[in-house]
Amino acid sequence: MKVLSLAFPGFTFIDLAGPLQAFSMLEGFESQIVWKATGEVASDAGVSVNATQTFETAWSDPDILFIPGNTKALFSLLSDDETLRFVADRGARAKWVTSACNGSLLLGAAGLLDGYKAASYWYTHDSLAQLGAIPTSERVVIDRNRVTGGGMTAGIDFGLTLLGLIDGEQKGKLGELLFEYAPEPPFACGRPELADEQTVAIARQILATLMPLEAIPTPGRRNRIG
Amino acid sequence: MKVLSLAFPGFTFIDLAGPLQAFSMLEGFESQIVWKATGEVASDAGVSVNATQTFETAWSDPDILFIPGNTKALFSLLSDDETLRFVADRGARAKWVTSACNGSLLLGAAGLLDGYKAASYWYTHDSLAQLGAIPTSERVVIDRNRVTGGGMTAGIDFGLTLLGLIDGEQKGKLGELLFEYAPEPPFACGRPELADEQTVAIARQILATLMPLEAIPTPGRRNRIG
Repeated sequence: MKVLSLAFPGFTFIDLAGPLQAFSMLEGFESQIVWKATGEVASDAGVSVNATQTFETAWSDPDILFIPGNTKALFSLLSDDETLRFVADRGARAKWVTSACNGSLLLGAAGLLDGYKAASYWYTHDSLAQLGAIPTSERVVIDRNRVTGGGMTAGIDFGLTLLGLIDGEQKGKLGELLFEYAPEPPFACGRPELADEQTVAIARQILATLMPLEAIPTPGRRNRIG
Repeated sequence: MKVLSLAFPGFTFIDLAGPLQAFSMLEGFESQIVWKATGEVASDAGVSVNATQTFETAWSDPDILFIPGNTKALFSLLSDDETLRFVADRGARAKWVTSACNGSLLLGAAGLLDGYKAASYWYTHDSLAQLGAIPTSERVVIDRNRVTGGGMTAGIDFGLTLLGLIDGEQKGKLGELLFEYAPEPPFACGRPELADEQTVAIARQILATLMPLEAIPTPGRRNRIG
């Protein structure tokens, strides 16, 4: 079970962690972390990981292609032809094409979500439509072989769901128990509709500077790349 | 806000990810990842991180000392004098002494939990008593400056709780919304009391081979080190 995960400079650390932790329980799990060069790739959380492969050496036929998200770092990739070509190529041959958070924007920009239902981070949810996808407000969205998770921590729900889909429900349940995944959000405000107005306003103000929705490629540009 | 995180070979990836993602929102956040040597440290999930400091060069007075958990890899540290001395030293001076999952066993083995309430992974919960702590069945346990999270994914609850404690409730709420932390465990069985008998039996069988509870140091040994 060849899991190919993209790690770009500035990626959101927990977007990668939840899914990989679940995937690591897959029967025959093997992992490659890919970027333009091998070696250190900084995350957004004060810790770096290591790319083991480049776009040239990564598996050509992964079982799972996985894309994490971020704010500015993810947005800069939406118009990066080299990355879009790589994602489009591996996505065309992967058994499962997947993402957490707004990593789905990169799948969409690479032309991999045309006509597919998909999840995204709450702030970027509507923008998925601009990239050909059908934005779907669920924490994990499965449409044929596209499996996408919502924002950041949704990667755990997404990873365990895919573990259960591939290796069977018993494995998914085992993963959830081994991970002690009985969450208790301390503030009970993890979605805009659950949070108070002030918290939502502060969040939107921060995200507006970090996620320039107007920079999301137009369909014309997307089709040229895809 | 100097956050010093231990990363030992084989550590559980998500134990580090949840807390660090939350800590990265702290005002003035700075991060050091420490191990016996700098450079690549493999996690248990098909990805490695990088230690930026050794036991010799790490901050002597961190604001937060953080210890992730694991199975065999964590257990091997419970009798590793070099690591125990380092954790005891930094723990004595850190403003906050913290862990996720069974990382609390290492805090205990280093003599840092004597008489403190603490959380741990469900399978290792009772063993905390052997190390001088008061095992407490909550997802996040705060006792004076010791803040410990339960198993693996509890690191997110723990991290957001500490973020709110240090920077104020508004920051904690903001973190929870930005992380889209409105979890939906797909199998609703993330604690033994929530899971069916078969899943609990399989989990216990796996954990019995990976977490040798009989190898946890006796109080005599602990006192010699601490």
